[in-house]
Amino acid sequence: MRCRVCGGEAVVRLEYANLRLCGKHFVEFFERRVLRTVERYGMLRGGQRVAVAVSGGKDSVSLLHALWKLRERLGVELVGVTIDLGIRGYSEEYVGVAVENFERLGVPYRVVRLADYGFTIDDAAERLRRPVCSVCGAVKRYLLNRVARELGANVVATGHTLDDFLSVLLQAYIRGDLELLSKHKPYLPPADGLVARAKPLAETPESDTLTYARILGLRFTERKCPYAGKAVSADYKAALNLLEERHPGIKFQMLRSFLDRVQPRVAAGAGAELKRCEVCGEPSSSRVCQFCRFRAQLAGEHLRLARAT
Amino acid sequence: MRCRVCGGEAVVRLEYANLRLCGKHFVEFFERRVLRTVERYGMLRGGQRVAVAVSGGKDSVSLLHALWKLRERLGVELVGVTIDLGIRGYSEEYVGVAVENFERLGVPYRVVRLADYGFTIDDAAERLRRPVCSVCGAVKRYLLNRVARELGANVVATGHTLDDFLSVLLQAYIRGDLELLSKHKPYLPPADGLVARAKPLAETPESDTLTYARILGLRFTERKCPYAGKAVSADYKAALNLLEERHPGIKFQMLRSFLDRVQPRVAAGAGAELKRCEVCGEPSSSRVCQFCRFRAQLAGEHLRLARAT
Repeated sequence: MRCRVCGGEAVVRLEYANLRLCGKHFVEFFERRVLRTVERYGMLRGGQRVAVAVSGGKDSVSLLHALWKLRERLGVELVGVTIDLGIRGYSEEYVGVAVENFERLGVPYRVVRLADYGFTIDDAAERLRRPVCSVCGAVKRYLLNRVARELGANVVATGHTLDDFLSVLLQAYIRGDLELLSKHKPYLPPADGLVARAKPLAETPESDTLTYARILGLRFTERKCPYAGKAVSADYKAALNLLEERHPGIKFQMLRSFLDRVQPRVAAGAGAELKRCEVCGEPSSSRVCQFCRFRAQLAGEHLRLARAT
Repeated sequence: MRCRVCGGEAVVRLEYANLRLCGKHFVEFFERRVLRTVERYGMLRGGQRVAVAVSGGKDSVSLLHALWKLRERLGVELVGVTIDLGIRGYSEEYVGVAVENFERLGVPYRVVRLADYGFTIDDAAERLRRPVCSVCGAVKRYLLNRVARELGANVVATGHTLDDFLSVLLQAYIRGDLELLSKHKPYLPPADGLVARAKPLAETPESDTLTYARILGLRFTERKCPYAGKAVSADYKAALNLLEERHPGIKFQMLRSFLDRVQPRVAAGAGAELKRCEVCGEPSSSRVCQFCRFRAQLAGEHLRLARAT
């Protein structure tokens, strides 16, 4: 098996592109694709400060390294953010891994502790009657936005891969969620109170981030979140992987046809208004934002807030 | 395991409805659902003649029997149609099975031979540079429409199940096929030259037709079409089955959310015009219909028709 670029021994075989590459040329290929994604969706502009959200897993660690290598070409400044969600026996490890990566690259960073806001994901799992993954997702979006603004960042970059993007898309298709179909995008421009959000790996299959991290010898954690067994996204990813295995390239096709054709059609006529949360002042689609509702419920303020919303 | 209706021994367990039923009450459940589907979409009206397309497989044989048992209640008259596609070592068997079912029920029928129109699916597989399943699908739609009209039928009923419906839907989502998303429906009313088409099993999972046919001891063929190994629909069905296994009921959710929300949004602004084929006069979306193009190509008239279309 020979590298298509240099003829040296290939270590990677990409079925979707019918491409074999050696380690060096795979790394180039990977980073060029990140650059192309950033450019295609206008995610970053020169002079911007980019808050890179790192969970310590292969995806966000690969993103951090790729953006760090591309930072001069893009003309951007990076700042790292990692959120200690307060998941016992799990958060300590990934926060440590994230910090190790920030320090190794000399990227300034902030560790945000959910506990400082009055609760943890362990509390939410135990006491809120909601799927914990949806609570966690809302909490991360909230804190990343708030902290990025505090850090003076213009955009939050997350490690969501093609597989993450498509598993949300497939769920939206199956649920007929027109609002999600209208606004699910690799890049969301800044809106009133919302820092821009970019997914520079939206065109990168998850399997490639693992390869990238291994070839570069990056330090990342493979430990699964103790609540991840309940994550439905894994089922949707498995269904998509089954199709990809039999039809290499189908994931890219699904992304392109959605963004180029389905979304423009569905989005015509949609549009939910953003308000401000009456408790914390952050952007919210309801009178009191989800984050404040979680917090109030966990503080035992059920009734008052339930009435207020 | 007890039947929820009568408390007798259950032989069927329907995960999607968390329901256990004995044979007798499963059959009632199955036929009531067919009736409900027919009524919900306004598929059949009293006094109509219904051409039931039977391929000899579990789905179409079950459809034939369910409609036969419901015919008085619906006030319709049935006529059977089976198409001999000219697939060696396969067509003989399923045509025989279809005829046996028609005769057992005393349903008048017509056997349509594709060879009488100048070619067979074996010819198409060998000589046309197109996936044979797509040729076969177009051929069946064409002939069913034409023959139904000749038989004075108001509607063609086919055995497409929930799984068939959703595998086409999933493909349409992945390909971003807005036209298909706009017009993929359990019931298509008659249009200029097109007999109405109904899928009375559109809300019936494929696994239930097998159960129904077995409980009633129906004669059907389990032989797979020799070309079916190439059918991509099987891959989409497998992906959906993986999701259904982990989330029972998700198939019904996908159907409803598509028909109630996604399709109305996507269909706004769509609409391709139907013309008449210049060769045979049948409805067609292009100047010469697919059927006539297949036929001409197989007769060696490549160039003339290629120019004409």
